[in-house]
Amino acid sequence: MPETKKIITLLTDFGLQDPFVGTMKGVIAGIAPQSHVIDITHGVEAFNILDGAVKLWQAARYFPAGTVHVAVVDPGVGSERRAVLVRAGGKWVEQWFVAPDNGLLGWVLAEADDYEAWLLENPEYFLSSGSNTFHGRDIFSPVAAHLAAGVAPDSFGRKLADADAPLTRLACLPQMANPTGETEGQIVLVDRFGNLLTNLRGSSLPDQFTLQIGGHTICELLTNYAQGKPGKPFAIVGSSGLLEVAVTQGSAAELLRALVGAAVLLKSVTPETAKA
Amino acid sequence: MPETKKIITLLTDFGLQDPFVGTMKGVIAGIAPQSHVIDITHGVEAFNILDGAVKLWQAARYFPAGTVHVAVVDPGVGSERRAVLVRAGGKWVEQWFVAPDNGLLGWVLAEADDYEAWLLENPEYFLSSGSNTFHGRDIFSPVAAHLAAGVAPDSFGRKLADADAPLTRLACLPQMANPTGETEGQIVLVDRFGNLLTNLRGSSLPDQFTLQIGGHTICELLTNYAQGKPGKPFAIVGSSGLLEVAVTQGSAAELLRALVGAAVLLKSVTPETAKA
Amino acid sequence: MPETKKIITLLTDFGLQDPFVGTMKGVIAGIAPQSHVIDITHGVEAFNILDGAVKLWQAARYFPAGTVHVAVVDPGVGSERRAVLVRAGGKWVEQWFVAPDNGLLGWVLAEADDYEAWLLENPEYFLSSGSNTFHGRDIFSPVAAHLAAGVAPDSFGRKLADADAPLTRLACLPQMANPTGETEGQIVLVDRFGNLLTNLRGSSLPDQFTLQIGGHTICELLTNYAQGKPGKPFAIVGSSGLLEVAVTQGSAAELLRALVGAAVLLKSVTPETAKA
Repeated sequence: MPETKKIITLLTDFGLQDPFVGTMKGVIAGIAPQSHVIDITHGVEAFNILDGAVKLWQAARYFPAGTVHVAVVDPGVGSERRAVLVRAGGKWVEQWFVAPDNGLLGWVLAEADDYEAWLLENPEYFLSSGSNTFHGRDIFSPVAAHLAAGVAPDSFGRKLADADAPLTRLACLPQMANPTGETEGQIVLVDRFGNLLTNLRGSSLPDQFTLQIGGHTICELLTNYAQGKPGKPFAIVGSSGLLEVAVTQGSAAELLRALVGAAVLLKSVTPETAKA
Repeated sequence: MPETKKIITLLTDFGLQDPFVGTMKGVIAGIAPQSHVIDITHGVEAFNILDGAVKLWQAARYFPAGTVHVAVVDPGVGSERRAVLVRAGGKWVEQWFVAPDNGLLGWVLAEADDYEAWLLENPEYFLSSGSNTFHGRDIFSPVAAHLAAGVAPDSFGRKLADADAPLTRLACLPQMANPTGETEGQIVLVDRFGNLLTNLRGSSLPDQFTLQIGGHTICELLTNYAQGKPGKPFAIVGSSGLLEVAVTQGSAAELLRALVGAAVLLKSVTPETAKA
Repeated sequence: MPETKKIITLLTDFGLQDPFVGTMKGVIAGIAPQSHVIDITHGVEAFNILDGAVKLWQAARYFPAGTVHVAVVDPGVGSERRAVLVRAGGKWVEQWFVAPDNGLLGWVLAEADDYEAWLLENPEYFLSSGSNTFHGRDIFSPVAAHLAAGVAPDSFGRKLADADAPLTRLACLPQMANPTGETEGQIVLVDRFGNLLTNLRGSSLPDQFTLQIGGHTICELLTNYAQGKPGKPFAIVGSSGLLEVAVTQGSAAELLRALVGAAVLLKSVTPETAKA
């Protein structure tokens, strides 16, 4: 059996017009030539930590155990914010994350049954010609490559203990809906098709419900994007398990003029309410 | 001699701002770690099947025999449309295609000397936590990965027979020009440089011709993009063998205000016509 | 020890909406299946040779020795411009470049201690079904793949001698600042975050200085992007070692309405000047 190559993923807000991402891959190829680099996305909105956190959470679970995820959305690069290596277990089946400690791992950690974290402190594993402005190239990529090449986690820095400040969390996390009452949520992502993703999990929806967003009330829950009537928004549980608002072959974001951060209100409809 | 890795290509309308494409690669890496994934493009216009069909046709012939192409432009995902595996032979030298049966393979099939098709019916080769909204992740990627890993085509589902509904074709296909008369065609693609690609093959052009598009008549056929005069559109046979309209270091699409779907009329010019 | 795969990088102005880049990778995979292709960027501005030259210079030094870089920004494709293979040594530790000879290698060559160049003349190593309009697919990719697969440089064409016309250079190159006087420079790149990169090296700045750009005078030199005051532009030495203008969590390009090509003036400030 051929040995499986170690997978390293990249998720950043660097875009693809600059050579930033290619440079990170050059650094990784020099340190861990047998690794296999996969882009999750480089289209995270610039400086938007929540956007990166949701996208990392959407993708990471689909990678094999042992994958090393490098995530860089880092407005505080070069400042005092900590840089960390995290091993998340349980549902995440032993995946590794290398990232700034600024909330970017917030959605992943919210679902990890257990995790361990190490500070990235040991310059021996950084690029020697380091900068203050591009830790993706100078710290996160080389650390991930050394980890993939077999360096032990403890080599990179001190393991975080209970006495240390905990990893930075996010205010907006995925949440269960109240199946018999009201639940407040918000739009956390607008995807390429204009679908509006909420932070409400589709696994606990009321049997019947209305979903309010802006001045609109949505009553219909469909099961695929092709079922809707032209121009009429509907609710759907999307491929990440979150409740979404969509329009068949159209953009719900344009139709509802909704943005990330917009509040949504999910209300259970009992047979009595429905009749009234 | 080292064994050549099986190549899997991806062509979608998913864009790169979301983690959709990275997630597909994670799924493939888990099933067929020795495969080699290459992106053809993820910039197909959202829901535009013709755009995807042309781009797949442009690229696929340049891949080695045995390549597995995953193509997903799928407005009907989760509805009744069929999903298929296709082996195309002849000119396509044994290439494989995994796609929804909605016309996306139309241009490739129009040039295949022969082909075989199987339905994707066997959930054993789908992702177990499947959705109705992301078959790229849940069906097409895992099937392509299992095929690349050696699973036989018959394992995925029933082979299409003559009694079955044939694969979906497209109305707009590549066509030969009439070398001595008139040929109607249309713009099928505007590329990144603003070049306007028609569906007329460059291999059968009249010796002299005019090309009408919108209110413009183009008389000049050049052989490279640098030969034109500034701001003056010209005809050229592009790298896919199709007749194009271009402008030197400019955008023909902007200059002519032409869009995909615009009609073009190619007219042979005989010496007599030219004199008149 | 497993043999390290030969790395081939790609840098073009092709964008990612068309199948151009994927097609190049298909060609490479057919010729050099054991090579490892890494995208530097395909977001070079269309036809902009300087933009490509700077981005290639930014990334190339971070790749391992022996890497083959394919660079294609080629408005003169199919015309008389030469196509070349270049081996650059010294600081560039034996990297290879395959490109049109139009200045695209200008920044790399300005820093190479020594180099050798060969013309790409031998059609034996081109794609047999070549075009006049897509040398990225038909000449540059196959030549790079054959080189990576072990073909000797002399096989591709004649080595350039002193009697030949030298490789095309660029007018705008990276330059040292005068640490005690004035230095004129220009904006050479606006990155994804709106940071304005000048062609002035950060390694030779005056102890104190002002930087004039448009009607603005910038006096502050910071060491990371998070240190600035909201809406106030500052100078910083970026990750490529060039002097940049930036704004904390904002776009200096938007704030200063500055474009590539804009002049900048760096003035040393002596204690006396500062007092006056």
